[in-house]
Amino acid sequence: MTQATGAEARPSVGAGRLAHRLSRARHLAADAGLDALLVGVGADLLYLAGYGAPPLERLTMLVVPAAGRPSLVVPRLEAMAARAIAVAEAGTVAVVPWDETDDPFAIVRVAIARDAREAGRAIVGAFAVSDRLWATFLLRLQAELSGATFEPLSGILRAERVVKDPDEIELLRSAAHAADRVIEAVAHGRLIGRTELDVSREIRDRLLAEGHEVAAFAIVGSGPNSASPHHQPTERAIRAGEPIVLDIGGTIAGYGSDITRTLWVNGGDPAKGPDHDFLTLYGVLRGAQAEATHAVRPGVPAERVDAVAREIIGAAGLADRFIHRTGHGIGLEEHEDPYIVAGNDEPLRAGMAFSIEPGIYLEGRYGARIEDIVVCGETGPIVLNAVTRDLLVVHG
Amino acid sequence: MTQATGAEARPSVGAGRLAHRLSRARHLAADAGLDALLVGVGADLLYLAGYGAPPLERLTMLVVPAAGRPSLVVPRLEAMAARAIAVAEAGTVAVVPWDETDDPFAIVRVAIARDAREAGRAIVGAFAVSDRLWATFLLRLQAELSGATFEPLSGILRAERVVKDPDEIELLRSAAHAADRVIEAVAHGRLIGRTELDVSREIRDRLLAEGHEVAAFAIVGSGPNSASPHHQPTERAIRAGEPIVLDIGGTIAGYGSDITRTLWVNGGDPAKGPDHDFLTLYGVLRGAQAEATHAVRPGVPAERVDAVAREIIGAAGLADRFIHRTGHGIGLEEHEDPYIVAGNDEPLRAGMAFSIEPGIYLEGRYGARIEDIVVCGETGPIVLNAVTRDLLVVHG
Repeated sequence: MTQATGAEARPSVGAGRLAHRLSRARHLAADAGLDALLVGVGADLLYLAGYGAPPLERLTMLVVPAAGRPSLVVPRLEAMAARAIAVAEAGTVAVVPWDETDDPFAIVRVAIARDAREAGRAIVGAFAVSDRLWATFLLRLQAELSGATFEPLSGILRAERVVKDPDEIELLRSAAHAADRVIEAVAHGRLIGRTELDVSREIRDRLLAEGHEVAAFAIVGSGPNSASPHHQPTERAIRAGEPIVLDIGGTIAGYGSDITRTLWVNGGDPAKGPDHDFLTLYGVLRGAQAEATHAVRPGVPAERVDAVAREIIGAAGLADRFIHRTGHGIGLEEHEDPYIVAGNDEPLRAGMAFSIEPGIYLEGRYGARIEDIVVCGETGPIVLNAVTRDLLVVHG
Repeated sequence: MTQATGAEARPSVGAGRLAHRLSRARHLAADAGLDALLVGVGADLLYLAGYGAPPLERLTMLVVPAAGRPSLVVPRLEAMAARAIAVAEAGTVAVVPWDETDDPFAIVRVAIARDAREAGRAIVGAFAVSDRLWATFLLRLQAELSGATFEPLSGILRAERVVKDPDEIELLRSAAHAADRVIEAVAHGRLIGRTELDVSREIRDRLLAEGHEVAAFAIVGSGPNSASPHHQPTERAIRAGEPIVLDIGGTIAGYGSDITRTLWVNGGDPAKGPDHDFLTLYGVLRGAQAEATHAVRPGVPAERVDAVAREIIGAAGLADRFIHRTGHGIGLEEHEDPYIVAGNDEPLRAGMAFSIEPGIYLEGRYGARIEDIVVCGETGPIVLNAVTRDLLVVHG
């Protein structure tokens, strides 16, 4: 028996707003010529039904037909939990439990056929499935709904989910401030002699203590490891005279925090740096992050924000040391639309929330990254994180 | 930038054994008439390559061709981490980084075509994909490899992964004992007046303190919530005179723990129970769990173990109160083959590891569950958990 990390995430959204989202989703499905949206466990299920089920091998699937009442197909042992969600109590969604020896994919097929019959619609054989549905489930659906076409649900829901409402922005702000406090505490605590893994564990504990229901990640990249953007903390002990990249986050009420700050640990001895090269690198990075943030306003293409950061780093001769995009959207998923990357010419809209996190990495030596969560406001950027973006030179 | 929970999981398996597993996988792919195995982030990637990458929207994919050297296609920003894994350092696997504006699916297709050409094989258009690969990735692969067929990788690898070697069993034992210590500590600590969420957080902290790299779940179902097998902890305060179901686990070096014990909290007052009905229910459950465990030996069909538990509970007139299967396999995944469920007539083999966890649930009133992790030994069951299975009547 198991309940996966993240299952506690329950955004405090009322049945009324969820019913509205479900109604919008139904219309979007009809407009797209789809029979139904097939939504597995994850952010889309939280967004549409406020239901945070464990991501396990027993199928949980919300069927949102183009017309008619949505059904939530759930394993029998989760029926009590499913019936307690607001949209089930309000009767907006019908809970359909299946037993251990039932075939839940056949139950989904039957629900789709019944919805179409009741709505007097012919089944066209076109569905959207949630992006993170497991392949094994999609293969079963493809076999069960033979001949049908499937497309990613993000294509249908992205316009809805990408713009956050004021309540969602408040949750993102609350998560950002909690993560800020963790960065402040860790930056000013003891570091020298401790392993990356030990500091990473402290960060996870502090994220939980600051109200996160999940401490999703706690990158601690010290010395040469600071040059690996997705470094996994190791037994390496932190020393005086080197940088540390901290990239941490989790969720509060389902909404994500994600902040990166770079420290330099000198052990109280100014002779232990930061060295000239690092200060130069950091200065370029600081400028790139600030200017990219400054470029945020409605109508600006997402890729333009990336280009601003890239041009500044490129002008310093470091173009090939900035090896990732500038940012990603954030909300009920840690990474979601809009992506701040070359090739994404989508204009920013007020209410979009995303990271701005350029980095410069000298492999084998060291690296740095600065990351904030930024909301596109009506007239410019609203930065949710409040920790200084200056290089944090600490005793450690 | 983000690194998801679980990414730290790195089983300490040497390059030699991984190379052997990769070689076996290649032969199995060839035997099944497949061009290649396409392995995304998750347990199969850990099993075959010892690589624990974050489960994110940038494609990470191990391509294991039926003949030739496997390729690990990774986002550029994770190339440094990927090159550091043992099978990459040994040259068994080629690391193929892709840049933010590349199409990684095209890179996978090109790798498949090159492997086939170098091996002098014609491409037949048949692939296996890891079960938990995201639907959005599978849809992209289906478009890129148009006309090809896809099947779940578990069909190919299950015979390999389902039998644990002695090192894997030691890791499962170590995880089980760590979880045992958490149950002991929580059962004997203060409970009355605390919320389920607060106790759940304590459990997660203790799992980490006991060496888990991930505290994956911590179900605390008190009073009527004990009747909901996948209950999500709430703000409900625990009271004297009621049961609590604790179902907790995580991973150590990638391998899972998972234990359930049921307590009765009486506040030090024997008049506060447990009541007669609960003692009766628990006695039936205790017997069912013991007899199901006792039934474990090589050659016994998995469903027989389920039937033993179900017959005992059914004989007490409670058949419809045991609403889930008796157990699930455990290893690099929290739930994996073999499932101990009606309809699974697969004979148990020595080295299989799984939970035995019957439960009895009186919805609206209370419930109980007992769960151990059990290894099928050469001559009978090897129970990895050591906490008593008697009802834990505690002051709380």
